[in-house]
Amino acid sequence: MTISSTKTLLDVEIAAAIADVRRSSPLIHCITNIVVAGFSANVLLAIGASPAMVENAEESKEFAAIASALLINLGTLSSERVQAMRAAARSAEAAGTPWVLDPVAVGALSFRTEFAKTLLEFHPSVIRGNASEIMSLAGAQGASGKGVDSTALSDDALIAAKSLASASKCVVAVSGAIDYVVDESKVIAVPGGHELMTKVTGIGCALGAVMAAYCAVMDDALMAATCASALVAKAGERAGHDNPGPGTFALRFIDQLSFLSTPDASAIL
Amino acid sequence: MTISSTKTLLDVEIAAAIADVRRSSPLIHCITNIVVAGFSANVLLAIGASPAMVENAEESKEFAAIASALLINLGTLSSERVQAMRAAARSAEAAGTPWVLDPVAVGALSFRTEFAKTLLEFHPSVIRGNASEIMSLAGAQGASGKGVDSTALSDDALIAAKSLASASKCVVAVSGAIDYVVDESKVIAVPGGHELMTKVTGIGCALGAVMAAYCAVMDDALMAATCASALVAKAGERAGHDNPGPGTFALRFIDQLSFLSTPDASAIL
Amino acid sequence: MTISSTKTLLDVEIAAAIADVRRSSPLIHCITNIVVAGFSANVLLAIGASPAMVENAEESKEFAAIASALLINLGTLSSERVQAMRAAARSAEAAGTPWVLDPVAVGALSFRTEFAKTLLEFHPSVIRGNASEIMSLAGAQGASGKGVDSTALSDDALIAAKSLASASKCVVAVSGAIDYVVDESKVIAVPGGHELMTKVTGIGCALGAVMAAYCAVMDDALMAATCASALVAKAGERAGHDNPGPGTFALRFIDQLSFLSTPDASAIL
Repeated sequence: MTISSTKTLLDVEIAAAIADVRRSSPLIHCITNIVVAGFSANVLLAIGASPAMVENAEESKEFAAIASALLINLGTLSSERVQAMRAAARSAEAAGTPWVLDPVAVGALSFRTEFAKTLLEFHPSVIRGNASEIMSLAGAQGASGKGVDSTALSDDALIAAKSLASASKCVVAVSGAIDYVVDESKVIAVPGGHELMTKVTGIGCALGAVMAAYCAVMDDALMAATCASALVAKAGERAGHDNPGPGTFALRFIDQLSFLSTPDASAIL
Repeated sequence: MTISSTKTLLDVEIAAAIADVRRSSPLIHCITNIVVAGFSANVLLAIGASPAMVENAEESKEFAAIASALLINLGTLSSERVQAMRAAARSAEAAGTPWVLDPVAVGALSFRTEFAKTLLEFHPSVIRGNASEIMSLAGAQGASGKGVDSTALSDDALIAAKSLASASKCVVAVSGAIDYVVDESKVIAVPGGHELMTKVTGIGCALGAVMAAYCAVMDDALMAATCASALVAKAGERAGHDNPGPGTFALRFIDQLSFLSTPDASAIL
Repeated sequence: MTISSTKTLLDVEIAAAIADVRRSSPLIHCITNIVVAGFSANVLLAIGASPAMVENAEESKEFAAIASALLINLGTLSSERVQAMRAAARSAEAAGTPWVLDPVAVGALSFRTEFAKTLLEFHPSVIRGNASEIMSLAGAQGASGKGVDSTALSDDALIAAKSLASASKCVVAVSGAIDYVVDESKVIAVPGGHELMTKVTGIGCALGAVMAAYCAVMDDALMAATCASALVAKAGERAGHDNPGPGTFALRFIDQLSFLSTPDASAIL
């Protein structure tokens, strides 16, 4: 398996995507969880996108069809969110709206593991999770999770990710110390980030939202997920450079996302 | 149409209202959305009010009758929140509890547009929205929204706001670069604020909550909505004075609301 | 009634508990409210625990059995959260998972007051509330609440707390200017904290979550609740030392929890 690094991508490609989001301000329909809804909205605003959390069954079908992209995050499922997610995923596929699936805690809980598999029928553009989640969704042996945190290394999940990407004809992103973005034929490694990113709730969830925003402006989902990962990793690196407390880190992470995605920001890689 | 500016109001009137909220700590019943619930609660605490988010059908009727004021924000509707909102609005009207309607994304989605209109039967004291939302609720031509963000200028919504205020016998507040607070006969312009207020989620939603808090201590809803707008604009101005990142701005906005509403704060206008 | 102070506890005991949470990273299942979900997750991460908010009926039974501890916080009840809470409490009791009940606004609203009493059948390890909530749950005369804020002093609630602890065979913690942690035979006073802790939403709710984390690593629920209170009080004290605005305070509170619970932090009392 050949692994490319983002270092081989031209900074200019990422810079163009960043500018596109900021210029077109794509409307991102998020069906996400009560823990990270506010943080994710602020992350999307920081990169110039327009977040809208709509999560009831009545409206999700209509909204997914008019949004620029859709995020479905399984964090805090409820009966109504389950209905809304299904309606939105179906509507997104029908309308050609790109969408990102974040299978939070899949593998650790049986109900959502089955539910996540049914959502694959609607062909997400990107699936983003930690190693345990991706391995579970791929039906890999040895998958295990502890609540929302992975107990497997992202490297271990590479084979499962390739298999899931092939079976689902989509891009799969595995978050970890190094992020991997995978499709049927390519593997891109995104290094960077900061350990404090695991000490603030919702960084992974917000990354899923950022991927949706880049999918809204780029036809190539592999590049969109890669750009999102690189931007988030760089913002995390800058926010954590002097190892602040996690409260300070979270605030600076939002600030840095905003600074890095202004038109005059220097190349981020 | 004659437009008054808050500059013509006596600072002393606003200062008195600020002190009243801080002294009496009115209980504000919020049925709001999962994105801004925490931020709105912190905003209410910062001005000295006592927030309580109660959003189930069973309790909302009882609570709206004993609260000092009620906020209904349509952000993340669910079947149960819809029931709770209806029960709370009916109960508030019966008990004489002033209440504020924030018609988030009305116009962009048909279900909530219809629902918002049914809530008008219970006579809100104030309706606060962006230009697109107010125009849609007023049934104006040319109303359009993009998710939760307005695509119309608040100036364009003035005529719609007057018409809505007349039809609903209430105060209508249109948020924008300049806020307008309108009743059947008056239009008050509230200048100020900062561009970063559009880059943090929930500033508009929190303004609705602050309006509810001032309605709790002032009989004149026009003055209550104006004071709330002026306070929020001033806090935004101070928080953004040196153009920080949006994470830093949000934190400072809470700090400034708190500083501005202490008894010894200087006049805010 | 003899009241012990945490000053009589050995710092070394609290330090050991802090290190245990950080080393074992217990999985804390939280069924909490939309206002504080994100803040509580960040608080748990700051002390080294692993938060997971799972709040639907289908999954809560399964998850409470595998989690290290469970928190049930009544803040924003919904029909589905009520079902999930009942299923989780039953499952936790059956599996021997320690669990903490936070009876938010019990006393002020009749539905949740009755509901909270039914949860007592499943034998929580700790009940944490303000004076009004504890007095109401104990069926004490004179209990009253105003929304989510207490109108009684925590000292007044001591007798009610003892009675509730005896009747429910559990630990009862009463939050206030001085926190009291009570079982059938002992009363421990935890001084400290800072007035700004009442000006940020969710500090009390987060304390309940921290208690759950300590219950996960200590068999003695009285000591677990005491350690949690002492840690939170100390973090509050440090965060508020120079009376910052409430936004800054909340951020520093998270930072301080993290700093205080690193292995090399000095004794906290």
